[in-house]
Amino acid sequence: MLTYIYLIAITAEAMTGALAAGRRNMDIFGVSVIAFLTALGGGTVRDIVLGHFPIAWTQHPEYLYLTLGAGVFTVFVSRYMHRLRNVFLVLDALGLVAFTLIGSNVALGMGYQLPVVVVAGMITGIAGGVLRDVLCNRVPVVFRQELYASVSLVVALLYLGLHHLGVGENLNMLASFVVGLGIRLGAVYRGWNLPTFSYQRSLH
Amino acid sequence: MLTYIYLIAITAEAMTGALAAGRRNMDIFGVSVIAFLTALGGGTVRDIVLGHFPIAWTQHPEYLYLTLGAGVFTVFVSRYMHRLRNVFLVLDALGLVAFTLIGSNVALGMGYQLPVVVVAGMITGIAGGVLRDVLCNRVPVVFRQELYASVSLVVALLYLGLHHLGVGENLNMLASFVVGLGIRLGAVYRGWNLPTFSYQRSLH
Amino acid sequence: MLTYIYLIAITAEAMTGALAAGRRNMDIFGVSVIAFLTALGGGTVRDIVLGHFPIAWTQHPEYLYLTLGAGVFTVFVSRYMHRLRNVFLVLDALGLVAFTLIGSNVALGMGYQLPVVVVAGMITGIAGGVLRDVLCNRVPVVFRQELYASVSLVVALLYLGLHHLGVGENLNMLASFVVGLGIRLGAVYRGWNLPTFSYQRSLH
Repeated sequence: MLTYIYLIAITAEAMTGALAAGRRNMDIFGVSVIAFLTALGGGTVRDIVLGHFPIAWTQHPEYLYLTLGAGVFTVFVSRYMHRLRNVFLVLDALGLVAFTLIGSNVALGMGYQLPVVVVAGMITGIAGGVLRDVLCNRVPVVFRQELYASVSLVVALLYLGLHHLGVGENLNMLASFVVGLGIRLGAVYRGWNLPTFSYQRSLH
Repeated sequence: MLTYIYLIAITAEAMTGALAAGRRNMDIFGVSVIAFLTALGGGTVRDIVLGHFPIAWTQHPEYLYLTLGAGVFTVFVSRYMHRLRNVFLVLDALGLVAFTLIGSNVALGMGYQLPVVVVAGMITGIAGGVLRDVLCNRVPVVFRQELYASVSLVVALLYLGLHHLGVGENLNMLASFVVGLGIRLGAVYRGWNLPTFSYQRSLH
Repeated sequence: MLTYIYLIAITAEAMTGALAAGRRNMDIFGVSVIAFLTALGGGTVRDIVLGHFPIAWTQHPEYLYLTLGAGVFTVFVSRYMHRLRNVFLVLDALGLVAFTLIGSNVALGMGYQLPVVVVAGMITGIAGGVLRDVLCNRVPVVFRQELYASVSLVVALLYLGLHHLGVGENLNMLASFVVGLGIRLGAVYRGWNLPTFSYQRSLH
């Protein structure tokens, strides 16, 4: 089940990456790279930081084909994508939760301490979007708004807490998806957000 | 032979990195770092992604000296470099092919599957330029124009195909250089390029 | 002793990272990430490049809490921070020297050759600030001015030279801090700097 959600999620992430590349007028190669990195960059950074080699996607070339294919496909259907905005927001939120759970589990399985497990879940959830934004030369959107990373944090903490309390894996995942989707959609449609910090002096 | 081309190539790449640093008015230290990363960053990213430790240049301090020296040297001869534009384009294309072949061979030797071998070749060919552009705060040029990465992709596929067909290593490399140089110089002098994707709406 | 200086230094670095995030109007999560990466990113990049797993901070969750706490704390006291400018400059310089010494020692302990040891010291000293600036979408300040990286280079060379001459560890560290602080404060208060390189033509 988590695998299916994962496959849908990396497809959706690849497509949003391709659109970001289109906003920078990239060529079809640039679109493919950004699509790939948006979808699989989070897991790549997580595996590098945890020293978890070989990196997951290198053992699954089908993920490579899926994300590159999704990137190229997006170029052809981009004119219709704004109509699917709501679908994408839900898929993106599902993906964020799935990435977080998978990332936490990788770190748990390697025996890392709990704070590192939480960080591993968050890295998996957000690093792909950060790479996309850095390569498109803009300040990463997840650092600025929309409770994106906060969802990842809450989901990781909830999952580990319920795990610790002995709640079964399926029920635990269900709770993660319900809470994660709830917060994320609340952020998007109700404008929930964190306080921002504005500082205009220079220390130098 | 590949080693000599490699040494010439990292020197040429370091010099183009130094010029990019000059466009951002960096100091001599910044110039050195950008020169180093442009030349050796591709191999570094490849080794990290493949889990190939120790990273190649850490075992060859002479590469470090060569690229730093080339960076500093560039500062003194920069006023003459536009006259050597054509020389640089050829050296840069040679380097792109050499990097791709070397990168593919590293991944092959580690037993990775073929799609990952191709990606490893391309990472080696283009990641140095991507790091240079990100650190100089611009959208990576390889994502936007000039068939740069496409050359790397075609060369990797051709090399692996001929390898599979039992073509000898020397003939195979020769074919890679002829085809790679041909496409790259066609892109530069004839304006060959890939279609670009332009998307101005926002999904958010 | 070096450990105490290190703890003070990562706190100070986290606080400067938080201010940089504030200049980009990030939310409290973005502030935390930038604070963490500014303080611990240098050691993270060093460990990845050296293949030194597990990465240092994953074994010390208290560093994670310290830097995140310092980032959030900064938001509340930011209005008073310009008055502490001189304190921060000294703490930052102390941190630069401490990071360099620690990084060099990690590479020495792994048996890397001396040029790589020096580079490892410099990566530890400056990569955190580079990550901060890339994520805040600006050209890294260490590449442009203020002898920041040069201090790291001089300290690494001095430390290794005295080490080689048989000077005791404590005296050696003292010398590193005196020389490092001297150069850095000279750069800040006297305007010492390296020549910059300005190049406005395009090779392409």
